Amino acid sequence: MLSLAQLLYKEVADLPIISPHGHTDAAWFAYNEPFTDPTALLITPDHYVYRMLYSQGISLTQLGMDANQRRGARAPDPAEVWQLFAAHYHLFRGTPTRIWLDHVFAEVFGIEEPLTAQTASAYYERMTHQLTRPEFRPRALFERFNIELLATTESPLDELQSHSVLQADTWSGRVITTFRPDPVVDPDYEHFADNIATLGRLSGEDTTHFDGYLRALRERRAFFRAHGATATDHGHPTARTANLAPADVAALYSQALNQGLDAQKAELFRAHMLVEMATMSLEDGMVMQLHPGVYRNHNPWLFEQYGRDRGADIPQTTTYVEALKPLLDKYGNEPAFKLILFTLDETTYARELAPLAGHYPCLTLGPPWWFNDSPEGMRRFRRATTETAGFYNTAGFNDDTRAFLSIPARHDLARRIDCGFLAQLVAEHALDENEAVESARQLAYGLAKRAYRL
Amino acid sequence: MLSLAQLLYKEVADLPIISPHGHTDAAWFAYNEPFTDPTALLITPDHYVYRMLYSQGISLTQLGMDANQRRGARAPDPAEVWQLFAAHYHLFRGTPTRIWLDHVFAEVFGIEEPLTAQTASAYYERMTHQLTRPEFRPRALFERFNIELLATTESPLDELQSHSVLQADTWSGRVITTFRPDPVVDPDYEHFADNIATLGRLSGEDTTHFDGYLRALRERRAFFRAHGATATDHGHPTARTANLAPADVAALYSQALNQGLDAQKAELFRAHMLVEMATMSLEDGMVMQLHPGVYRNHNPWLFEQYGRDRGADIPQTTTYVEALKPLLDKYGNEPAFKLILFTLDETTYARELAPLAGHYPCLTLGPPWWFNDSPEGMRRFRRATTETAGFYNTAGFNDDTRAFLSIPARHDLARRIDCGFLAQLVAEHALDENEAVESARQLAYGLAKRAYRL
Amino acid sequence: MLSLAQLLYKEVADLPIISPHGHTDAAWFAYNEPFTDPTALLITPDHYVYRMLYSQGISLTQLGMDANQRRGARAPDPAEVWQLFAAHYHLFRGTPTRIWLDHVFAEVFGIEEPLTAQTASAYYERMTHQLTRPEFRPRALFERFNIELLATTESPLDELQSHSVLQADTWSGRVITTFRPDPVVDPDYEHFADNIATLGRLSGEDTTHFDGYLRALRERRAFFRAHGATATDHGHPTARTANLAPADVAALYSQALNQGLDAQKAELFRAHMLVEMATMSLEDGMVMQLHPGVYRNHNPWLFEQYGRDRGADIPQTTTYVEALKPLLDKYGNEPAFKLILFTLDETTYARELAPLAGHYPCLTLGPPWWFNDSPEGMRRFRRATTETAGFYNTAGFNDDTRAFLSIPARHDLARRIDCGFLAQLVAEHALDENEAVESARQLAYGLAKRAYRL
Repeated sequence: MLSLAQLLYKEVADLPIISPHGHTDAAWFAYNEPFTDPTALLITPDHYVYRMLYSQGISLTQLGMDANQRRGARAPDPAEVWQLFAAHYHLFRGTPTRIWLDHVFAEVFGIEEPLTAQTASAYYERMTHQLTRPEFRPRALFERFNIELLATTESPLDELQSHSVLQADTWSGRVITTFRPDPVVDPDYEHFADNIATLGRLSGEDTTHFDGYLRALRERRAFFRAHGATATDHGHPTARTANLAPADVAALYSQALNQGLDAQKAELFRAHMLVEMATMSLEDGMVMQLHPGVYRNHNPWLFEQYGRDRGADIPQTTTYVEALKPLLDKYGNEPAFKLILFTLDETTYARELAPLAGHYPCLTLGPPWWFNDSPEGMRRFRRATTETAGFYNTAGFNDDTRAFLSIPARHDLARRIDCGFLAQLVAEHALDENEAVESARQLAYGLAKRAYRL
Repeated sequence: MLSLAQLLYKEVADLPIISPHGHTDAAWFAYNEPFTDPTALLITPDHYVYRMLYSQGISLTQLGMDANQRRGARAPDPAEVWQLFAAHYHLFRGTPTRIWLDHVFAEVFGIEEPLTAQTASAYYERMTHQLTRPEFRPRALFERFNIELLATTESPLDELQSHSVLQADTWSGRVITTFRPDPVVDPDYEHFADNIATLGRLSGEDTTHFDGYLRALRERRAFFRAHGATATDHGHPTARTANLAPADVAALYSQALNQGLDAQKAELFRAHMLVEMATMSLEDGMVMQLHPGVYRNHNPWLFEQYGRDRGADIPQTTTYVEALKPLLDKYGNEPAFKLILFTLDETTYARELAPLAGHYPCLTLGPPWWFNDSPEGMRRFRRATTETAGFYNTAGFNDDTRAFLSIPARHDLARRIDCGFLAQLVAEHALDENEAVESARQLAYGLAKRAYRL
Repeated sequence: MLSLAQLLYKEVADLPIISPHGHTDAAWFAYNEPFTDPTALLITPDHYVYRMLYSQGISLTQLGMDANQRRGARAPDPAEVWQLFAAHYHLFRGTPTRIWLDHVFAEVFGIEEPLTAQTASAYYERMTHQLTRPEFRPRALFERFNIELLATTESPLDELQSHSVLQADTWSGRVITTFRPDPVVDPDYEHFADNIATLGRLSGEDTTHFDGYLRALRERRAFFRAHGATATDHGHPTARTANLAPADVAALYSQALNQGLDAQKAELFRAHMLVEMATMSLEDGMVMQLHPGVYRNHNPWLFEQYGRDRGADIPQTTTYVEALKPLLDKYGNEPAFKLILFTLDETTYARELAPLAGHYPCLTLGPPWWFNDSPEGMRRFRRATTETAGFYNTAGFNDDTRAFLSIPARHDLARRIDCGFLAQLVAEHALDENEAVESARQLAYGLAKRAYRL
């Protein structure tokens, strides 16, 4: 069985990478400046790394995260932070972060000895030196990684300057944006009213009324489309959708801007806005993505001291069957509408998501997300969804990462896990070998292009 | 380990099939007419097949499901439907439907080449021809499949004519009915009041009052008992049970018949009726089965166009601990009462169902059901329930199918999976080999007979 | 892969046992009297054993559990109970109880032939005889089992006499207590008001007012600390915590003592008391343990006839993210505070507990608990938690048992399962072999000492 898995893997190992959902910085590719040092490249942007260090008593100030240096402490030197990280590398045993980093050290930097407190400074020096060389600049790595397409994610308030630079450039790398409207559709988002004012200014629409607000969103979607976007992304606390009467939602919108909404009304507004977004997707052809189910900024002290995205977001129970019904009642049978669903609540894979995606023509299952983007998470996803949804109702792989250098490692692991899964089906006589080869290519490459209309 | 699994499998492969819960048509065996064509036999009755095709954009009209042909379209020819299905057979990779159908093609029809768009018409012709032969008539297949007992499922409003024919016949095959009272105990069931009137007519009782209604149910249960039934089956939205005061339930009943009940009261009435059914089971000895947790007809447009059972039923979160308490408080310690529990929410296996069944003498765990009647589903069931409930608090295997030809494939797979599970226990020194053999025979045959009092 | 697992196992098989959480009787070690007979040793104290027998129709009276012998029946002879148990030993196939008992028979008593109805009396005689010998006395077994530390669990109302005897004794075995305040912090506990009065008497504080009650709890904690306790344990229905205003909680307390509290207020009082316990843990350094999520005494008839802890406790859906927030908001970032979390709802492993423990410095994950203390349960725990929480946010193994003789079997199995898990990581190139050895030693020994501050 192992050798069949290896055979299948050989068939897909060299396929180009389609990365249709992620969080890298388009400026890297637009301006192609060298990365400064290993800490800034691998530690500072990676909340998986510092959440684990924090859980074992290392403060974010020690890791250089305290932008204000409120306590008057000296900001740590990047080399010191690297040393501290290396001395705690054992904490990552058994985690995907360990897999990604080992892959980066070996495959990108060519370092084979293990990272420890003893080898930390040699690592740091070697990597820092390598980063000054042309072949470690962002575009060179993009090409070396064999990336066919990379999508970034931006707010409607972003002017997409880096994407404009890329469009005007002769470089062949394809980097596109994704429309992520949370800051202007979630009344609980920080500075919501200010964001709406900015939206009005950018779009030239009067966003003090709901109709102008919808026109402004349409304008920004068109702007994103013009910068390559084929998809929107929605990070809501729940999967709830709603079809409110026009007067009701307009009133909610006014209240959100002027007095603010309580938790229940804010939820209702977000729920309605998902249906508005679906309406616009039917008009402009953008694929919707829904990522629900996270309690953001669960640690208020940490949020106050260090800001958002510091590893304190925690998944919660999430359900889809009742929540999505208003949206599905309206557009569930529209052939042109496409919605890709993600979850952090794996209990929904077999119980809700696979049955929904195995019925509704508009639904596609996204790959295992965030905490579940891991060997065990990927295996659980295939085992729980394939029997009811099959392979063709899934969207291939997303790396969903800020850690650019980890992209090849993540796609490589996903391909290995999927080949292992397919090999088991062949071993159990549930699939022929030639079908397994074709399926492996779909899972590694074809399905992502189809799902994201690339 | 593999060879022990195979050894165990050899011990059970040829045991007769006990099929104590299913949805085949008793008329097939009563009248023994030939099946007409492969499409009518394998596609049209199987919602697993057309839900997957529908999820990938094939309309039910293209599959010949649109009985009214509302849009004036020509009804598709069965051979065309077969061709369409075959051209999309890759959608079923990794699904149990693929396993059942490959087994049917190879073992029942003797076709070894893969089904593809190219081989579709040869398949269709060969199978159509075979279906005209005597050895492909229902009774011949029943015998060839080595079925010892087959239970069908009927409404209390059914007059069980086919079962009467079978009882009067000299044919040795044992086909029994199952009492499924949902149409007359669920106030949300279509035409509930009409159903109750029919129940009154059939039973000769006055069903305009609750007492007469209970007498009518007792009469129909006796009628089903006389046609072989040893079990009842209850497909409720939840597992909720209730012990209402007689005056309260009588008032609910009147209201259900006359004005209708809101969602909450309908739930309460169903909950109470489960306890009434338990009372009657104690009287007449019929085993109760409870299948909760499905949102039926989730897609209203599809329901309106094509009716119920079209692949649009979606499982939901289900809980049992609080829900069953009223029933268990009343009958949980009664030695003669038996309740077989099913679930589509696998999170309840280890958390609720195995602990409940491993304590209450009345409770037995049914096999993995519906979407979970699959290799991975069967493995998850054993892994999650055995350590707390053991094997002897489970009910063996049910195929629960409308697809008559798939019955041997389903029982065969269940036997293979269970033998694999037992072999692993032996490999880990948790079980002796001779015990594994005995357990395999129980799981394949003995436990089903015991659980259903056959 | 198997041979690496075996190699790793050899590295840890002989490490001393740390048993930081359990329910053995300190009097066994204080007075070192011989155990009387196999039934009293292995059947009567083990609710896993009689819940399974009860589920298959054997009454607790037949097992000698009916202390009152209310029905005038003769109490069964222990040898008869043993015979009945042996005749039903097949019910335990596939369960961890079977693994523990087979290990005890073979390793502790040296009996190799299988237990059956036929061998039952030979087993009984041989074991009864062996129990009279000095090497089967509690202290001798403790030493033979290579136990370095054993923690028992007591109520604040316990005077810890056996622990005092042990402290005054020259025996080298280390047996410590654990502070389990449920009887005096849970208003729903039987005889709550009487318990509070006893608490006042034992502590010399006026427990008629909330302030005196808190002082009394502090006094008892100090008393337990003086008897070796390093941890507290809290068995609440849910994980809910709360920060009530002092006047509000004082009023709730008075009402609890005088009129009693309804379900919602009792829950609120328990929730607040968890935060008070955390405050005291910060003062005295005791590690907190929280075991939520069980519906206790689900079977009222059995509770009335035979009392509590008779196998009728059933797990339920449990959530942590909202529930723990008040406690974490207050102490989540305190370096000195430690809270070990357990669950019976395995859906929370990957979704909630691993993300929480992989972020908050105060949180540690306890091992798989109760029904999940089993081969499959242990495997699921590692697979679901390691990728997000790593190994170092877990607390090693607990046996949590009343069944003293099963302690070596349980630790041995946990070590085997963990070595198998580590070997798989090495096989997948996610871990080096020398790291796997070090990790195996931590999982078997080091992490438990660290988590419980031993």
